[in-house]
Amino acid sequence: MYRTHTCGQLRLDNNNNTITLCGWVQRVRNLGAVTFIDLRDRYGITQIVIDQNSTDEVKQLAESLGREYVIQVEGVVTERSSKNPKMPTGDIEVLCKNITILNSAKLPPFTIEEESDGGDELRMKYRYLDLRRSPLQRNLMLRHKTAQLIRNYLSNIDFMEIETPVLIKSTPEGARDFVVPSRMNPTEFYALPQSPQQLKQLLMIAGYDRYFQIVKCFRDEDLRADRQPEFTQIDCEMAFVEQEDVLNVFEGLTKHLFAELKGVTIDTFPRMPYSEAISKYGSDKPDIRFGMTFTDITSIAQHKEFPVFNSAESVIAICAQGCSEYTRKQLDSLTEYVKRQQIGAKGLIYVKYATDGTLKSSVDKFYDQEDLLKWAEATEAKPGDLILILSGETEKTQMQMGALRLEMGHQMGLMDNKKFSPLWVVDFPLLEWNAETNRYHAMHHPFTSPKKEDMAMIETSPGKVRANAYDLVINGVEIGGGSVRIFNSELQAKMFALLGFTAEQAEDQFGFLMNAFKYGAPPHAGIAFGFDRLVSLFAGLDSIRDVIAFPKNNSGRDVMMDAPSQISAEQLKELCISLVKKI
Amino acid sequence: MYRTHTCGQLRLDNNNNTITLCGWVQRVRNLGAVTFIDLRDRYGITQIVIDQNSTDEVKQLAESLGREYVIQVEGVVTERSSKNPKMPTGDIEVLCKNITILNSAKLPPFTIEEESDGGDELRMKYRYLDLRRSPLQRNLMLRHKTAQLIRNYLSNIDFMEIETPVLIKSTPEGARDFVVPSRMNPTEFYALPQSPQQLKQLLMIAGYDRYFQIVKCFRDEDLRADRQPEFTQIDCEMAFVEQEDVLNVFEGLTKHLFAELKGVTIDTFPRMPYSEAISKYGSDKPDIRFGMTFTDITSIAQHKEFPVFNSAESVIAICAQGCSEYTRKQLDSLTEYVKRQQIGAKGLIYVKYATDGTLKSSVDKFYDQEDLLKWAEATEAKPGDLILILSGETEKTQMQMGALRLEMGHQMGLMDNKKFSPLWVVDFPLLEWNAETNRYHAMHHPFTSPKKEDMAMIETSPGKVRANAYDLVINGVEIGGGSVRIFNSELQAKMFALLGFTAEQAEDQFGFLMNAFKYGAPPHAGIAFGFDRLVSLFAGLDSIRDVIAFPKNNSGRDVMMDAPSQISAEQLKELCISLVKKI
Repeated sequence: MYRTHTCGQLRLDNNNNTITLCGWVQRVRNLGAVTFIDLRDRYGITQIVIDQNSTDEVKQLAESLGREYVIQVEGVVTERSSKNPKMPTGDIEVLCKNITILNSAKLPPFTIEEESDGGDELRMKYRYLDLRRSPLQRNLMLRHKTAQLIRNYLSNIDFMEIETPVLIKSTPEGARDFVVPSRMNPTEFYALPQSPQQLKQLLMIAGYDRYFQIVKCFRDEDLRADRQPEFTQIDCEMAFVEQEDVLNVFEGLTKHLFAELKGVTIDTFPRMPYSEAISKYGSDKPDIRFGMTFTDITSIAQHKEFPVFNSAESVIAICAQGCSEYTRKQLDSLTEYVKRQQIGAKGLIYVKYATDGTLKSSVDKFYDQEDLLKWAEATEAKPGDLILILSGETEKTQMQMGALRLEMGHQMGLMDNKKFSPLWVVDFPLLEWNAETNRYHAMHHPFTSPKKEDMAMIETSPGKVRANAYDLVINGVEIGGGSVRIFNSELQAKMFALLGFTAEQAEDQFGFLMNAFKYGAPPHAGIAFGFDRLVSLFAGLDSIRDVIAFPKNNSGRDVMMDAPSQISAEQLKELCISLVKKI
Repeated sequence: MYRTHTCGQLRLDNNNNTITLCGWVQRVRNLGAVTFIDLRDRYGITQIVIDQNSTDEVKQLAESLGREYVIQVEGVVTERSSKNPKMPTGDIEVLCKNITILNSAKLPPFTIEEESDGGDELRMKYRYLDLRRSPLQRNLMLRHKTAQLIRNYLSNIDFMEIETPVLIKSTPEGARDFVVPSRMNPTEFYALPQSPQQLKQLLMIAGYDRYFQIVKCFRDEDLRADRQPEFTQIDCEMAFVEQEDVLNVFEGLTKHLFAELKGVTIDTFPRMPYSEAISKYGSDKPDIRFGMTFTDITSIAQHKEFPVFNSAESVIAICAQGCSEYTRKQLDSLTEYVKRQQIGAKGLIYVKYATDGTLKSSVDKFYDQEDLLKWAEATEAKPGDLILILSGETEKTQMQMGALRLEMGHQMGLMDNKKFSPLWVVDFPLLEWNAETNRYHAMHHPFTSPKKEDMAMIETSPGKVRANAYDLVINGVEIGGGSVRIFNSELQAKMFALLGFTAEQAEDQFGFLMNAFKYGAPPHAGIAFGFDRLVSLFAGLDSIRDVIAFPKNNSGRDVMMDAPSQISAEQLKELCISLVKKI
């Protein structure tokens, strides 16, 4: 062992001990008579002192040190005269007897500090240096701790972690697969799993009863910001359970994590039907840290000669408390916000409910004080509040208002990073119509069961059938989702038919699962959490990138390793593939 | 919830409770007046009773049940009149009030029992049914438990589990890579990791100090029996440590696993230099559950006119205790054994040391009693023992004798499944000469450090340089291996040169690691255990296949899913690759 202690370990108890530390030189401060070295490792920082009692050799070595040199220090622990209460080791320092340079270091291309001066690209290229910074180390430690807590919690309630294969069969439903050419089976390919969905269902059929796995999954999607081609999922499945059982188990797990990691106790998570989430928040993942829910004022807004409202399917309002003093500039900027292409509203109507009780709106030409007062009553607006109104086709207006609500929540400081508001969104539609492919797609996935009470509509109005599907949403972020599965081969076959699969296609792609259903499949249900997302929530980060040790950039590249890369002609030949120029 | 209890849970304490169970029908025994159903789930089996008090509906339902039907049973727990002490639930049975068939089952193609009547192929195709059998369930539970113990043990001593990417850069050193074409970076490929070797070294450079990961690794090798294209590794790395520290930490882990999983306490693991393993056991993974070590009798065997010995580089003997009564047939069969192609000996010499003290050998023509007695003394043979002798070129003879020793150990019943004899093999050679490529290859891998005291020979006799490399061997099985790494970029560059890499090749393939060494790399060392192999050892199995939920066959196929498989022309086009006919 090169050391007796770590750089985070020494306390007053160790006073006068002769010890050896190893670590990286964070900083050297030469004050003439005395030189201080901040020596850093994963566990902390310890102050090393070189003074008039040190040998010339030590003094010279200390002078030669650069940032990020790796050194070994022998010395004696001493009580500091001026203690540093901000550092766990701040009561002591180490009087240096000997320094050994274990490795020198070129000057790093950016600073290894809490906040670095390096740009994104540079820090990705030298990820191993960026990973030395404390925020990254804290994130990865949090990730490790979270995984440990999850594994122990689930193991204690009889879940078994079972590894499913990474080289599986390609199935075109869902996102695009990454594929792996098979050398031993030329012209054939494995696929990397988008999730172990079918395999975990087989494990239920095999009687494993409670399965989980913290597992890498893969999607070859065009990468939007904050998507990674490989990501980690907490994948779970249970047999002989109904929806309520799954929600209870994973609510328990989530509460446990909040308690252990954040010291936060959370009451029972509210449950909200999908339809309510859409009509009150304009989103299937509402951020309920704040209210500002929608009021439908269509009926009280359509009795005057204002053609915009009169021609609208819905007129929807929110009340922004205490915002009646918004300036023209602020209101214009909100209008710009809702009119941007991604949101697509045509305009924004406002009503200022002044503190003196008067109402002033952008549609005063059409509506009088009495009209506006009715809107204020409907939205529960009080003097001092601002009412914001959008109108048009219902679904679109809901989505637009959902975006505006979040923007207002942001502007009004209602999205507190330290507050956590989890929520189950339930009763999702089973299917959604895709105009492009001119067929229904499974909203969750094709193994999700329809609600019994809606089964009568499955032939006549399939779009209205609700599913036994649920999402866990925290602070407006979808953390996970799952469903009660179909466990009957006939119903599964009917489902595939609804989704436009021919019997042959269904057999070819899902035959082994449908066949397995015939050999005694138990009722089962499951859920999967996005592990990267969950950890980034606990870390208070917007992006998942900094809870992943070696993430890829938006083109799916690892710029540190320079992957992907060309492979040799020999390799291609062995795999029986050749490259084709992109047309 | 479909049930109140599991099928392994009910005891006399539950007497008279009304309960609900779910599970699979293991067996229905209709004895006329009374029918017994053995109901099975992962947790156990409970006996259900239908008797004259049951309703006609229940009786009819019971008659309709087939093997592996999934049912729900409501009933009352009752003390059994004739208890079954072999079953944990054997004190009670459940008087059936109601049966609900949750799912019917086609007759399974083989029996779901401790021993199945199904052949390998069939059981692989219906793996989800094979996985219902108790031996498989015990194996996967053992695997889960082992992983949990490892994670908790390592976490408690400050190791962090850090996930490294699965989509990395292809490097031709080592085995063949599986590759993944990148759609977003046409003509380029990711590789699946053969191990996270370079990434874990980067994590040490990044200051993570103690890393582990239970992680999938991939090798596109021609599959020998008991090799899988994807396998699981316990991958570990530590900074600021020497070889002894790594051995101590992972000896501690291994002892902990033996204690927790097998109730076995094991003393300090012996450490044996590679050279001793070869000269005494003819193997770098000696099975030391038994002795029968080699004696070199070259000097005392070459003084007579026996040309076979006289022309041999080495004459090596083992003593098989108590085997002097081996028959001609047995000895012939041993001769056949060592002459088979994989072993390649030319013949086998024996000396029987009869219980009456006389010696009889297959070379009596050349050697008298006095000669043979000398051999007996050298091999410590006693009356009643059998001496077996091979001769020829030293290395070959050692390997041949190693095989013969194992065969004798097997025949003599010395390889007790319940006994565990771990051993560290240390001081491996750094390099081995490859006659095919006409260059040195790294015996461990190119990041392994040479022993300081052997550095002088690195230019002159590179083949003699020993490495700071070590293997953990248990019962003759290599469970894991590792090394102290090079952490200096110049030495690493020299190593690549020794291995025949040009500077450009080294830069292209390992540039990011060598560059990272320049920014402050700490001394570090690591180890990796084969997790599948370790679990199969604990399970007392010879094969790793049955500790893996969904293994592949010897052609790398998953016959259940039918993977790999053809992919669509559309997919190929998007990936910019085309298929080439195998020549």
